[in-house]
Amino acid sequence: MKAKSFAAPSADKPLEYYEFDRREPTPDDVELEVQYCGVCHSDIHTARGDWGEVEYPCVPGHEIIGIVTRVGSNVTKFKVGDRVGVGCMVNSCGTCDACKRGFENSCFEETIWTYSSKDPVDGTDTKGGYSTLMVVPEHFVVSIPESLDSAHAAPLLCAGITTFSPLSHWKIGPGMKVGIIGLGGLGHMGVKYAVAMGAEVWVITSSPEKKAAAESYGAKGVIVSSSEEDMAHAANSFDFLLNTIPKAHDLSPYIKLLNIHGVLCIVGAIEPMPGFHSGDVIHGQRSVAGSGIGGMKETEEMLAYSAEHHILPEIEVINIQDINNAWESLMEKNMAKRYVIDMKKSFPTE
Amino acid sequence: MKAKSFAAPSADKPLEYYEFDRREPTPDDVELEVQYCGVCHSDIHTARGDWGEVEYPCVPGHEIIGIVTRVGSNVTKFKVGDRVGVGCMVNSCGTCDACKRGFENSCFEETIWTYSSKDPVDGTDTKGGYSTLMVVPEHFVVSIPESLDSAHAAPLLCAGITTFSPLSHWKIGPGMKVGIIGLGGLGHMGVKYAVAMGAEVWVITSSPEKKAAAESYGAKGVIVSSSEEDMAHAANSFDFLLNTIPKAHDLSPYIKLLNIHGVLCIVGAIEPMPGFHSGDVIHGQRSVAGSGIGGMKETEEMLAYSAEHHILPEIEVINIQDINNAWESLMEKNMAKRYVIDMKKSFPTE
Repeated sequence: MKAKSFAAPSADKPLEYYEFDRREPTPDDVELEVQYCGVCHSDIHTARGDWGEVEYPCVPGHEIIGIVTRVGSNVTKFKVGDRVGVGCMVNSCGTCDACKRGFENSCFEETIWTYSSKDPVDGTDTKGGYSTLMVVPEHFVVSIPESLDSAHAAPLLCAGITTFSPLSHWKIGPGMKVGIIGLGGLGHMGVKYAVAMGAEVWVITSSPEKKAAAESYGAKGVIVSSSEEDMAHAANSFDFLLNTIPKAHDLSPYIKLLNIHGVLCIVGAIEPMPGFHSGDVIHGQRSVAGSGIGGMKETEEMLAYSAEHHILPEIEVINIQDINNAWESLMEKNMAKRYVIDMKKSFPTE
Repeated sequence: MKAKSFAAPSADKPLEYYEFDRREPTPDDVELEVQYCGVCHSDIHTARGDWGEVEYPCVPGHEIIGIVTRVGSNVTKFKVGDRVGVGCMVNSCGTCDACKRGFENSCFEETIWTYSSKDPVDGTDTKGGYSTLMVVPEHFVVSIPESLDSAHAAPLLCAGITTFSPLSHWKIGPGMKVGIIGLGGLGHMGVKYAVAMGAEVWVITSSPEKKAAAESYGAKGVIVSSSEEDMAHAANSFDFLLNTIPKAHDLSPYIKLLNIHGVLCIVGAIEPMPGFHSGDVIHGQRSVAGSGIGGMKETEEMLAYSAEHHILPEIEVINIQDINNAWESLMEKNMAKRYVIDMKKSFPTE
């Protein structure tokens, strides 16, 4: 089946219209018509080659909501017409300890990402959700709870799970003080989840003008990272810091904000980080951790939690023809919202 | 009271005999005659100025067992003749959250170390246990369980608590796979505790000849850190790594040994560490943590645990007159044992 899409033709050129064939579903595959696809910073990083060489044309997009159009003969969880989601990964070995424990995102062999990975099923390069059609193994497709609006649900598949998983793993709850570093697409979701979990939440940001937004999501206020006074005042006080800064940076000033046994978890920057003095973590038995999306089981838990607690991202719906402008504005400022592509509106049925 | 001792006269000279006055005990102080003092790598680091400028003469030593000779009027826990221990710290603010929760070692104001700290009681530079006499606030003195031999108990006050605290905090137990990186004074204690706690324990070392020693302490075997084959075979398998390497080093090869949710805890190197790729911790939701000695409450727990499980360090008893040779051999090789100074034998009563 022909998939209409937008793709990066190279690392340095704007995305452009592109058409290609999706494979025929295998017995284990689900085919879906894409309704909405969120726009993630990773899309830009990958397409521009920041994370290593990729094959072009590169079709990004891994926050996907769609309607099932066909299912393979072995598929039992979904039927034609179901509303489903696809996130950042579309395959993994399935047999290692990580996969068996439900952490396909940390497969010890290789996680197959939704775009720009080598697909073990047909040997092609995977292509993402900036596209009208997806074909994905059943195991990597999730049901979307009925109460969640489709456009708003799309970013849950990456921004949602990336923030929910660590907050859930480190058992954020009442009595804890949580800092969300950065108030962009990830950060604003982090605030909403941590608030829902019952923690006292602060946003740590270089942009004091984000105070109103932070508070509107339930944060107590902001700590301005460039203010020595703010940072000194907040020293040794946080039980958990969710670090959504999307590029390498000095962790030391943030580690010093942690209370005894505090954990700083990196979810934004995926690159070599500058070193820190081990005394920063030795003091207070602190930890620097990392977390990336989550496993399929956690993703289902996140969707159920989001539906139950009415947690949805702030979004701005765009047509895919506006994607290059959206990328530009995303790079200019880490916005506290997600662009979501309306695929049906972008490609009205002839 | 005059204290006979050995002190470093400067950063680059051998230790030499030195005599000084200990203060009269305040109402809150305990005075003790030092029987034994362990020799720790930190003694060398501090005296040589590796961790910052210190005042000379510097009297090291923070693994101290002694007999109470006088107590202040407010002292209730100890009486003359009691056998007691003093570890790495002799004071803290006592009022911050860390102190109130029993983590005086991470006091948010300032932990006063046993040597080369500014003593808030009398304004002098603190002087350690390479000495016949100590005067220490009651709160920083611990009882030594009767079944523990004095010479063997001395290193528990630093090497013991430094390894026990993180293993206890991260709940090491049956079903867990634990790696002890480095088999020196800290490492061999780490092996013994982790084995007693029921974990499957491996030693990760650059010295394959340490296999027999490692196994004699209860380890399953060694993983040779310079062997690509050994390291690849052990990838993604450890729940906890206790990193006792005493100087800065690349953490990446070790982080890659961690299983999902695995924690690598630095207890050896206290200095700026090289950075690592955040992907190493993002993969598997892993953590890089740190830990340094432990609070007074944990120290008491460690002593009780060591007595109950018969966990004692390997030691070689020396006279203080041999201290410079001991330091030399300690620096040449990270030995799987502790030198312990017999202070009474070093300075026989006239």
